[in-house]
Amino acid sequence: YGKNTIKFLRLHKEGKKHCVKEVEVCTHLRLTSAQEYLEGNNSLVIPTDTIKNIVLVLAKKNGIPSLEQFAIDICNHFMTTFCQVVYVKTYVQEVPWQRLHENGVPHIHSFICVPDGIRFCEAEQCRNGPLIVFAGIKDLKLMKTTQSGFEGFYKNEHTTLPERHDRILCGELFCKWSYGECKDFDFDCVWYMNKIRECILEAFSGPPDCGQYSPSYQKTVNGIQMLVLSKVPQVQVIEVVLNNTFYNVLDMKNLGLTNDKEVLIPVEAPYGSCACTLGRKKFFEA
Amino acid sequence: YGKNTIKFLRLHKEGKKHCVKEVEVCTHLRLTSAQEYLEGNNSLVIPTDTIKNIVLVLAKKNGIPSLEQFAIDICNHFMTTFCQVVYVKTYVQEVPWQRLHENGVPHIHSFICVPDGIRFCEAEQCRNGPLIVFAGIKDLKLMKTTQSGFEGFYKNEHTTLPERHDRILCGELFCKWSYGECKDFDFDCVWYMNKIRECILEAFSGPPDCGQYSPSYQKTVNGIQMLVLSKVPQVQVIEVVLNNTFYNVLDMKNLGLTNDKEVLIPVEAPYGSCACTLGRKKFFEA
Amino acid sequence: YGKNTIKFLRLHKEGKKHCVKEVEVCTHLRLTSAQEYLEGNNSLVIPTDTIKNIVLVLAKKNGIPSLEQFAIDICNHFMTTFCQVVYVKTYVQEVPWQRLHENGVPHIHSFICVPDGIRFCEAEQCRNGPLIVFAGIKDLKLMKTTQSGFEGFYKNEHTTLPERHDRILCGELFCKWSYGECKDFDFDCVWYMNKIRECILEAFSGPPDCGQYSPSYQKTVNGIQMLVLSKVPQVQVIEVVLNNTFYNVLDMKNLGLTNDKEVLIPVEAPYGSCACTLGRKKFFEA
Amino acid sequence: YGKNTIKFLRLHKEGKKHCVKEVEVCTHLRLTSAQEYLEGNNSLVIPTDTIKNIVLVLAKKNGIPSLEQFAIDICNHFMTTFCQVVYVKTYVQEVPWQRLHENGVPHIHSFICVPDGIRFCEAEQCRNGPLIVFAGIKDLKLMKTTQSGFEGFYKNEHTTLPERHDRILCGELFCKWSYGECKDFDFDCVWYMNKIRECILEAFSGPPDCGQYSPSYQKTVNGIQMLVLSKVPQVQVIEVVLNNTFYNVLDMKNLGLTNDKEVLIPVEAPYGSCACTLGRKKFFEA
Repeated sequence: YGKNTIKFLRLHKEGKKHCVKEVEVCTHLRLTSAQEYLEGNNSLVIPTDTIKNIVLVLAKKNGIPSLEQFAIDICNHFMTTFCQVVYVKTYVQEVPWQRLHENGVPHIHSFICVPDGIRFCEAEQCRNGPLIVFAGIKDLKLMKTTQSGFEGFYKNEHTTLPERHDRILCGELFCKWSYGECKDFDFDCVWYMNKIRECILEAFSGPPDCGQYSPSYQKTVNGIQMLVLSKVPQVQVIEVVLNNTFYNVLDMKNLGLTNDKEVLIPVEAPYGSCACTLGRKKFFEA
Repeated sequence: YGKNTIKFLRLHKEGKKHCVKEVEVCTHLRLTSAQEYLEGNNSLVIPTDTIKNIVLVLAKKNGIPSLEQFAIDICNHFMTTFCQVVYVKTYVQEVPWQRLHENGVPHIHSFICVPDGIRFCEAEQCRNGPLIVFAGIKDLKLMKTTQSGFEGFYKNEHTTLPERHDRILCGELFCKWSYGECKDFDFDCVWYMNKIRECILEAFSGPPDCGQYSPSYQKTVNGIQMLVLSKVPQVQVIEVVLNNTFYNVLDMKNLGLTNDKEVLIPVEAPYGSCACTLGRKKFFEA
Repeated sequence: YGKNTIKFLRLHKEGKKHCVKEVEVCTHLRLTSAQEYLEGNNSLVIPTDTIKNIVLVLAKKNGIPSLEQFAIDICNHFMTTFCQVVYVKTYVQEVPWQRLHENGVPHIHSFICVPDGIRFCEAEQCRNGPLIVFAGIKDLKLMKTTQSGFEGFYKNEHTTLPERHDRILCGELFCKWSYGECKDFDFDCVWYMNKIRECILEAFSGPPDCGQYSPSYQKTVNGIQMLVLSKVPQVQVIEVVLNNTFYNVLDMKNLGLTNDKEVLIPVEAPYGSCACTLGRKKFFEA
Repeated sequence: YGKNTIKFLRLHKEGKKHCVKEVEVCTHLRLTSAQEYLEGNNSLVIPTDTIKNIVLVLAKKNGIPSLEQFAIDICNHFMTTFCQVVYVKTYVQEVPWQRLHENGVPHIHSFICVPDGIRFCEAEQCRNGPLIVFAGIKDLKLMKTTQSGFEGFYKNEHTTLPERHDRILCGELFCKWSYGECKDFDFDCVWYMNKIRECILEAFSGPPDCGQYSPSYQKTVNGIQMLVLSKVPQVQVIEVVLNNTFYNVLDMKNLGLTNDKEVLIPVEAPYGSCACTLGRKKFFEA
């Protein structure tokens, strides 16, 4: 049980310069007891209202140095404060506020919401177990208008899809990776120094002047995983899900026109999905 | 990988009487190979477009005798047709069309959408493993305006929640249970004969003339599980999630009024969540 | 300017029996002045926070006898209390809680949310003008699986739609009517005695044993308007919008099957829309 | 009546460089006749399916030089082709694809979806009337963490809001302006040369080094209107709606802490709304 979507803004002032971190936190606990379920005895139950208070108090006291560190702080607090807690999990996601710029000059206190991929993280711990930290990015919508195909697939009497070597590849990416046991990382430093987001974009799109051919969603997913694992040594395991939107080249023959991939209709349902989790061992085996 | 939200309507005519079943299907597969990820070799990949075609062909040929039987048919088809499939999972949910009635007379071909709880099911199978069938109901929003409290809970310096013995209990229920290994059930018969939905509503609300006191969300969740397990012998394990909306009694003192639980404000975020899975063994232990 | 989505629950107790009315209110004002826009002079501005307080105070004091009466009370309060208000509009919509029943017995304090059409109303008044009251129902999803066609329409080189005399008609209805100047109606009485909802369903679906042929969405819309105007004398003008979802009979020839209107795919985008407003004068002219 | 959410992607190739424009179009017509409503005579009805075809054919033939020009083309087509059309309105909104960059180098065929404000436009025409063109931006979420207050407002017994001179101003902007009668504009040129989006951001946030004090939402709305009207001579009338999210400074006294505007809770419902339409005449009068 726990509390979901605890939303708040943490405002931090450096002189006249303001910095904001708006987040949404979910914290879930498992307790030693079952008596609250079986007997209605609440004596060990930490109210979800208290969970919310603790999250807000920690935000007030420590700030949010990074999403990951904040999630770790929350887990640590519950494990060290409440002996009846046997498991704690905290999820934190960020509202994508970006500082406004006017003619290249950053504004001291104005921000714009730019949801081109949402950063999130998760920390979880069993009593007597390690604290595991995950990080990720979701709702990242990308498209490439060529250098994608799908050929040589398995066929039988239910196959109607034609082979294609030049289609649009468009989808929403969900990427989540594990940093393994919690170490004393500066998580934002890992994120920015290793350019994880840039890695993902580059693996998806290929070189800017020519792109890179993708023979399947699966290969694109694998390409992202391989590049992140090779460029970011701190990442132990990476899961990527690609929910793709198919763009159908509209047949305009009955309207007397030849449509040379100029007008395409997005097909939002049904949509294909391709998910894979890749770890270091598997990586080296490959 | 697989195909999500394959939506279609299956129309069945019995003379002039029409019956409709509109569903949304998600089918996911795992294959023996990894070469499509690593090498871009698609020779064993069944396109998600073919998955969609198969779902539609099965709906056309067999109809949808019940959501569960349809999900089983899909799993069986993939397991018996494609030796490269090592795992298949199918989720089916229903659009809640109900036949219209005029002055109590059922209409032969008109329907209304009544989303007061959505029925769904899931079937999954590993090669050489049993076919497991789940069923459930979700998005079921219930409220009781008294006979609910929360007292005697754990307190420390972060506790601000007052004890209360008369509050509103309002939430959205998600219930999912396992029928264990697939048997030759008539699943709709199990559903209707055992009045599973009525069980859930009854366990939530208590007798119509007085209700039943709930000392916590946890106990209400447990009560639902216990009643379903006791009344429906086919259910092996049941998971219940209760996402509750808190109703805050508005303090109107500064407006010169005494609010005796007459005006309440729903607090949609953050919301508490309480989940529990209960099986037969545990049940008898209890 | 104004306040939107003021959500609250009004609980009313008749002995041990509880009655609930949960609503969402939007109230907008126009003031005599423009100085708050031009000069930042707020001296006549009623804060939206005060608007919210007033709505809640009225709910506490008067209860919600009917949605319409509550909207009227709000408008009256603003007009009589604040001479700087030149226009006020209030919209109220209801959360569709229904009393639970167990084996036909109504429960004294338990409810279920059944969103099969949402009742709403609107009241508006200009200073020195009449108070106008509207009522309506929205999000009402209906389907008939036969007795619908579309033939004899205008054709040119851009027409690809075939003529059809047996298609599925499915759509979401929005109906809003005016009761004209505010009279001392018992609005809920008008609603229930005249069976407005039943009128709409009947006009959509026709007799239960055979239905009624619809030659177009337009005619169905008109049929609803005509029936409501003829059966409900209090209604002056009625607007109906039908947003229809097309169900495409899937061509399964390339899968070796003949699909005799058994498997249909809902097309959610783009969707057609058909709106018409009909008043009494026009009615009698027709 | 008409067709809504006609979604498509228009792909344009300049050698190896690809350009994309993905849009959502709604086109509505009013006809001379009423016989389709009253008599079910469809002989003058242009099917919404044909409306969709025409939109797609125009996209294929003319491309989308700008959203506005495309909307004009559609209106012109209906007015000149169908004499039974007495009114046509077309709305076009853009999916915010942006070209990907790698280390500053633009990618020839890869794009990312960046929804930080959605451009849209509308064109409408009555037969024998002028063609009017509107343009706008919506879903633009902005925040300033200081330089905002609300003081000196009207107070009575229902006022509980304290005066504040340092609050957070956060909201979603909807801006829509008229270019008056259609002229031979290069609309994208007007947009980019006049930096309309930058105008709006600047009026909202003030100078980057110090901001500008806002005494009310109303004044901020007016400030945006005044700046756009003064900087963009082509704009005749501008409507701005600001839906604001209130950030509540959490009282942490009962948790033993002093919260100096460090932790704030967004209040999403109810929300205030402030709308104003300002034209040139009114502007000069002021």
